[in-house]
Amino acid sequence: MSIRSFNPPMRTLMGPGPSDVHPRVLAAMARPTIGHLDPAFVGMMDEVKAMLQYAFQTRNHLTMPVSAPGSAGMETCFVNLVEPGDKVVVCVNGVFGGRMKENVDRLGGVPILVENAWGDPVDPNKLEDTLRSHGDARLVAFVHAETSTGARSDAKTLVEIAHRHDCLTIVDAVTSLGGIPMKVDEWGIDAIYSGSQKCLSCTPGLSPVSLNERAIEKIKRRKSPVPSWFLDLTLVMGYWGGSNKRTYHHTAPVNALYGLHEALVMLQEEGLENAWARHEKNYHALRAGVEALGLKFIVREDSRLPQLNAIAVPANIDEAKVRQLLLSDYNLEIGAGLGALAGRIFRVGLMGQTSSMKNVVLFVNALKEVIARLQHSAGRSAAEPPALRA
Amino acid sequence: MSIRSFNPPMRTLMGPGPSDVHPRVLAAMARPTIGHLDPAFVGMMDEVKAMLQYAFQTRNHLTMPVSAPGSAGMETCFVNLVEPGDKVVVCVNGVFGGRMKENVDRLGGVPILVENAWGDPVDPNKLEDTLRSHGDARLVAFVHAETSTGARSDAKTLVEIAHRHDCLTIVDAVTSLGGIPMKVDEWGIDAIYSGSQKCLSCTPGLSPVSLNERAIEKIKRRKSPVPSWFLDLTLVMGYWGGSNKRTYHHTAPVNALYGLHEALVMLQEEGLENAWARHEKNYHALRAGVEALGLKFIVREDSRLPQLNAIAVPANIDEAKVRQLLLSDYNLEIGAGLGALAGRIFRVGLMGQTSSMKNVVLFVNALKEVIARLQHSAGRSAAEPPALRA
Repeated sequence: MSIRSFNPPMRTLMGPGPSDVHPRVLAAMARPTIGHLDPAFVGMMDEVKAMLQYAFQTRNHLTMPVSAPGSAGMETCFVNLVEPGDKVVVCVNGVFGGRMKENVDRLGGVPILVENAWGDPVDPNKLEDTLRSHGDARLVAFVHAETSTGARSDAKTLVEIAHRHDCLTIVDAVTSLGGIPMKVDEWGIDAIYSGSQKCLSCTPGLSPVSLNERAIEKIKRRKSPVPSWFLDLTLVMGYWGGSNKRTYHHTAPVNALYGLHEALVMLQEEGLENAWARHEKNYHALRAGVEALGLKFIVREDSRLPQLNAIAVPANIDEAKVRQLLLSDYNLEIGAGLGALAGRIFRVGLMGQTSSMKNVVLFVNALKEVIARLQHSAGRSAAEPPALRA
Repeated sequence: MSIRSFNPPMRTLMGPGPSDVHPRVLAAMARPTIGHLDPAFVGMMDEVKAMLQYAFQTRNHLTMPVSAPGSAGMETCFVNLVEPGDKVVVCVNGVFGGRMKENVDRLGGVPILVENAWGDPVDPNKLEDTLRSHGDARLVAFVHAETSTGARSDAKTLVEIAHRHDCLTIVDAVTSLGGIPMKVDEWGIDAIYSGSQKCLSCTPGLSPVSLNERAIEKIKRRKSPVPSWFLDLTLVMGYWGGSNKRTYHHTAPVNALYGLHEALVMLQEEGLENAWARHEKNYHALRAGVEALGLKFIVREDSRLPQLNAIAVPANIDEAKVRQLLLSDYNLEIGAGLGALAGRIFRVGLMGQTSSMKNVVLFVNALKEVIARLQHSAGRSAAEPPALRA
C-alpha cells in the first residue's frame, strides 16, 4: 500500500451544502491544536456560544454546537425531547421532515404526520386541524428551509399555532440559519438545530443547537433516561455550560471549532441583516438568469428560499450529465434531486460565501453552454449514422 | 459584540489526548472543501478505509470513521449491537468501562459487571467466572487501553474467553490504536472503535470503527430498529460502503477527513510496527526520567501503556498547581486524574507525534523544576511571616 497525500480539486460549491468555505475559515482550521480543557480553548468556546446566540437571535443559555453534523443536531433535539409513547406532530414536505419522523419512530414515539406536497411550504391550516384532532400531542416539529425542495415554511406562524395548542416546537434550521431571517426568541422557538456547512459557510461536521427554558424543563421532567449518552444535553451542558468549571464529557473537535469560530466572526463582521440581504439579492439575479434561459423554479415564488433553488430539469436533458459536465469542465458542483424529485430537479445553492454575483454569472452561463452542448449533441446523434457516434 | 479571530497558543500536548498534530495534518485540514459526494472525495474515502484497515490490521469491509468523537464510536457499537433486555458483560477498570455500562443501561440492556481496581488490567479469570455464571450473555465489552488509568488489558485473551462462551466482543481501542499492537483479525475482535486524536495524532472529532461479519449478522438479526438514525450502521454503510453508488446519509466532515487521511498516510510511511516500537522506546526514556525524580507509576510494570502514563502525585504537592505552572510557564499540557483518581495522579501522554525524546526531556525537566519551585515556596511560606507571602 502506498497512498499519498490528498489534494482536492478547487470546486465552486453551488449544491445543497457544503457551501464555499472562505480561506480565513480554512486557515483557522489549520491553527495548532490545543486541549479541549485548555483555558484558552474554554474562552474560545464562550465566544462561539455568544456568536451562535447572535446568529440564532436568542438569549438561550443552552446554545452550542453539537460535535457532529446536522443530522446529529436533529437527533439531539428528538432524543432529548421525545419519550416512548409521546405523540409528536411532524410536518413533512420533503426529505428532512421524513427524517424527523424516522427519529420519532426509532425513539418509540408516535408520529402524527402533517403531509404537504414536495415543493410546498407546510400548510398552517393543516397543522391547526391536526392539532385539533390530536389534543394530547405536546410536540410539533417542522423544517424551516426544506433543503430537498427549496421551500420556506412560515416558522413564526407554525410556532404560534403549536403554542396555542400547548405544544413545544422543534425547528430544523439547517439551511436557513444565516441565510434568511430566523428569530428564535421573537418567534418563541423552543428547540432548534442547524448545520455549519450551509449559510454559515464553515466546513461540515458541526451542528449548532439552541433550546429555551421550556424545552430544558421538559428534559428535566423525563421519566426515562435519554437513550443516547453522547447526545444527552444534561451531560453535554456540563462541558458547554456557562460555569467556570468545565466537566469533561467528550473530546471536542478542537480544530473544527476554530473554523466555526472564524465563520461566525465573519458573520458578525458582515452583520446578520446584511447577510440576509445579500442572499436575497443574489437570488434575484439567479432568478433573472435562469428565467432568461427559459427554465422554471419548482417552488412558488412566495415560498422560495433564496439560498437553495430547485430548478426543473428541461425536457430531454439528462440531468446527471449536466451535473457531470459542470463538474468536469467548470469545477462547479450543483445538487441532484432527492427522493421523489431525483432526476427531475437541479438544486442550486447560493449559501454563505457561495452567494455572490460572480457565482450567479458563472452558473447561469455554464449551465447555458452545457445545455446547448447536450442539445446539439442529441441533435447530431439523431441525424448521423450510429458508426460515427463513438 | 466584537469578537476577533482566535489565535491559540502553541502547546506541547502531553495529556490524555488530543496529542500533538503534525503540521502536515493541519495543512491538510485547510485544503479547499469539496462536496461529500464529489467523485474525488469518494476516492479519498476509499483510501481512508484502506488505511484504517491497515491500522486495525483487519480485512473487515465495515471499517470507517464515524463522523463524531470517540464517545460516538463507542455509542455506534453499543447502539447497533445491544437490544433491550440483552445481557452484556462489561469489564470495568476505569472511567471508560463505566461509560460502556452507561451505554448498555440507556439502551435497556442488562449490564453484568466484571469489576477491577482502577489501575489494574481486566482480570481474565474474573471474566471467565462471570461468563460461567451468566450463560445467557452474548456480548462482552472491555477497554483495551484504559485512558483514565494507563492500564493495558490483554485483549487477545479476553476475546478468546468471550468466544469460548459464545459471546461477541466490543473493544475500546481509543487510546491503543497506532500506539501498541492491535490485531483485530488475528485476535478475532468483533467490533472495535477508536479516536482520531490519540496515537493517530489527528485532530479530535472522528472515531474509526471496524465490525466483522459476525457483528454485522447480529445487527441484521435485530428484532427492534436501531434507536439512533445517525449511528445506524446499516444506513451509514450506504454512504461508506464499497459500492460505486454512494447513498447520501449525512454530510461528512470533509476537512476533518482530509486531516485523518494525512495522519494515516504518515502512519503508513512510518510503518505500524515502527510506530509501536517508537511508543515503547520513548516510554522507557520517560520511565527512567520519572523514576530518577523519585516518582512512581500507579500501574504495575507489565500492564503499563507506553502511550499513557499515570504518575502518582508526590506528597504535599498541589497537582492542579503543577499542571497550571507547566501550562503557563512551559506551554506544556499534561492531564489530571479522573473520577476516583482525581487529584492523585498526573496523566502523561506520549501518543502519536507527542511520543518523542524531545518531549520526554522537556517534560521530565520541566516537572523537576516546577516541583522544586513548589517545594521551595512551600518551605518558604512555612518559614516566613504571612505578610510577605503575597
